[in-house]
Amino acid sequence: MSQTKFLLEESQMPRAWYNIQADLPKALPPVLHPGTLQPIGPADLEPLFPMDLIMQEVSTEREIEIPEPVREIYRLWRPAPLYRAHRLEKALGTPAKIFYKYEGVSPAGSHKPNTAVPQAFYNAAAGVKRLTTETGAGQWGTSLSFAGNIFGLEVLVFQVRVSFDQKPYRRAVMETYGARCLPSPSNETEYGRRVLAERPDHPGSLGIAISEAVELAAQRADTKYALGSVLNHVLMHQTIIGLESMQQMEMADAWPDVVVGCTGGGSNFAGIAFPFIGHALRGGARSRIVAVEPAACPSLTRGKYAYDFGDTGHMTPLTKMHTLGSQFTPPGFHAGGLRYHGMAPLVSHLKELGEIEAVAYTQGQCFEAGVLFARAEGIVPAPEANHAVKGAIEEALRCKREGKAETILFNLCGHGHFDMTAYQKYFAGELRDEAYDEKELAMALSGLPSVPEAA
Amino acid sequence: MSQTKFLLEESQMPRAWYNIQADLPKALPPVLHPGTLQPIGPADLEPLFPMDLIMQEVSTEREIEIPEPVREIYRLWRPAPLYRAHRLEKALGTPAKIFYKYEGVSPAGSHKPNTAVPQAFYNAAAGVKRLTTETGAGQWGTSLSFAGNIFGLEVLVFQVRVSFDQKPYRRAVMETYGARCLPSPSNETEYGRRVLAERPDHPGSLGIAISEAVELAAQRADTKYALGSVLNHVLMHQTIIGLESMQQMEMADAWPDVVVGCTGGGSNFAGIAFPFIGHALRGGARSRIVAVEPAACPSLTRGKYAYDFGDTGHMTPLTKMHTLGSQFTPPGFHAGGLRYHGMAPLVSHLKELGEIEAVAYTQGQCFEAGVLFARAEGIVPAPEANHAVKGAIEEALRCKREGKAETILFNLCGHGHFDMTAYQKYFAGELRDEAYDEKELAMALSGLPSVPEAA
Repeated sequence: MSQTKFLLEESQMPRAWYNIQADLPKALPPVLHPGTLQPIGPADLEPLFPMDLIMQEVSTEREIEIPEPVREIYRLWRPAPLYRAHRLEKALGTPAKIFYKYEGVSPAGSHKPNTAVPQAFYNAAAGVKRLTTETGAGQWGTSLSFAGNIFGLEVLVFQVRVSFDQKPYRRAVMETYGARCLPSPSNETEYGRRVLAERPDHPGSLGIAISEAVELAAQRADTKYALGSVLNHVLMHQTIIGLESMQQMEMADAWPDVVVGCTGGGSNFAGIAFPFIGHALRGGARSRIVAVEPAACPSLTRGKYAYDFGDTGHMTPLTKMHTLGSQFTPPGFHAGGLRYHGMAPLVSHLKELGEIEAVAYTQGQCFEAGVLFARAEGIVPAPEANHAVKGAIEEALRCKREGKAETILFNLCGHGHFDMTAYQKYFAGELRDEAYDEKELAMALSGLPSVPEAA
Repeated sequence: MSQTKFLLEESQMPRAWYNIQADLPKALPPVLHPGTLQPIGPADLEPLFPMDLIMQEVSTEREIEIPEPVREIYRLWRPAPLYRAHRLEKALGTPAKIFYKYEGVSPAGSHKPNTAVPQAFYNAAAGVKRLTTETGAGQWGTSLSFAGNIFGLEVLVFQVRVSFDQKPYRRAVMETYGARCLPSPSNETEYGRRVLAERPDHPGSLGIAISEAVELAAQRADTKYALGSVLNHVLMHQTIIGLESMQQMEMADAWPDVVVGCTGGGSNFAGIAFPFIGHALRGGARSRIVAVEPAACPSLTRGKYAYDFGDTGHMTPLTKMHTLGSQFTPPGFHAGGLRYHGMAPLVSHLKELGEIEAVAYTQGQCFEAGVLFARAEGIVPAPEANHAVKGAIEEALRCKREGKAETILFNLCGHGHFDMTAYQKYFAGELRDEAYDEKELAMALSGLPSVPEAA
């Protein structure tokens, strides 16, 4: 049996993130002010973000150096391992070679600290005292709590109320890192109070929690906002995943024919995929790039590519993206990290440019794949990661049918140790394939903001 | 800032376990038959264990080769990383260098698969079809489920009922690996039925669960029993921890003045400590070896060194060990993996020989240490591992007082992602320092089996 793990030395950890905006054949559509519908400039974002991050958001430089204090924290778990899934290949009887990058080795158990750490660093460097953010299942809130603590920032997390109530141990992780965690909608913001006035038992949503976090950050000079996905700079911070993977595939003397990732807001997918897409855009070998999304929240496969708000309260600028409509409420499936109405503008743009394929699977299909993976490889994946596992298994089975020994690489973005109640329900046969309401989707899509074609 | 992680290549993974019985200045007291009080031979253990493991139990060879199929599975997560705790040192203001070996990278999140995998392998090789075992918090049951699945064995886990009810997600992990998990006391065994007849709502204990698992294994020819700690061969399998750590300390150009581990049954402690003790016994540099146990279950610091049963139902042979008495019920603190009335005979023997020091801390002290560690190093330790963290911090603070730049190594045997409810209680101020009942201890100790001094 040949090698299982491909590990890099700390000295081989990438020194710069990769900014795919440098290699785009066509620039991203501009971000618009929701009132004027005019493109916004860096200054418009200053109430929410420190200037270093805003400049990363709009930069077209190919490489942006990772500051040493960020690298120092990355070294607590990075470089992350890349595995050859020998036992999964055998279980599937496929001639394909399957590799996976494993981001569950981070302190938070997922890829999210890759961007939480630089975001906390740049905010602290700009003299910010407090960060607000939203979290659904809790992966992002945990990660920002971890990173904020390291750089001496207060962190206030608005957690979607239904998760806050159902997953108290997630709050315990955030508190272990010294953060404060509130159920959203809350009474701490005007928007939260408005939502609660209409419906005191509102279960909350990511869109509402974003509105609350943004509102608080916009009001206070010493407080900024941090987002765990969607934005360009967030996706760029995640490219360390793909950059490491490239070195590790070379160590394995292989190169992916297919790269697979799961998509919610798009950050872990971009992390593994963008360096490979950029490599092809610059004339290198081309890999097929496959985004796997939940059938219950299918922004890439069923959404509209249009300008929309990032939040429910309509406080954010308008970005062009694949969206199900900001008023769309995804059903309550277990991959909480993928329950978002929109898709990162960069991922959406690359989908439109034909660089990315997208498929959707139900949660039942994904848990089945996750259990198969766990029994073969030992690691129990997070429900979100199960989508990538399912996508990779489908590619491997296609290779088996076609008799092709292709190389498949996927991103195992987190472990499932915080999500075992979902597996419990799966085994008890209580996991339903939650479907969204077609009428609600049609209504949410018909309510998209009207933006002139020229924009 | 100098290096954070010390990683070994797969090719540097040890090829043999270390058997400290080869280097003992005085042999272990014999294991006695509970009826005849005569030393038992290998054949007496055959109903419960395959002969390969029995021979390891009594072997005095220094090195026992790790079979290649076991190494193949070890490679899924081994070699495990060793870290320099730069940020913890800074937080403590200590001149000491603190290193920790991290076993939470295994699929089960703890060190337990190090022995679960070879136990499953040797049983499968002997034609066994089914393994029974007990589990408290669930770490061991999870690990044996993982390993049994890999080698095609059915696994039946008796989980202490109070944990079974309080931690359903643990059962979900075992089921993900294909195992069957029952609450103990159960109706599947004669002993379980007897306990339930006396008290239908019995919360269970490790000692009772062991009796049930042993009873079932003894009855069926195709079924054997697996234990997660205490026995010589189990401790030996864990020595891969210390053997790797030795190589990694050399990479770091350092050597521990103090080695710290937490002790319940003794396996993770033995894993990190025995290779260092053996090194000293063979004339090498001597490290102080510190065992840290819970004040609520203090077998090494308050128990009696005497012959006792390993289980409550008195089905096991008698071994000489530090014991609180087989009828002692430890209070329900959160480090479930340390709630056992006895201590491994090898650890007990080495304590008597003066090779090991022991200290005890309350769970409040240990959680406080764990939170300090999590905020500095990012990893949230398991409640069991918090005892080792506390022990290492106390050594580092002593170094600070004494102005000594000693090197401290401890074993971080697992992460706490499955145990966040305990942290939640800690933050809510609801974590009491459970004390055992002195009268109950005195009674349990007075009930030790009477064995002639000569034995």
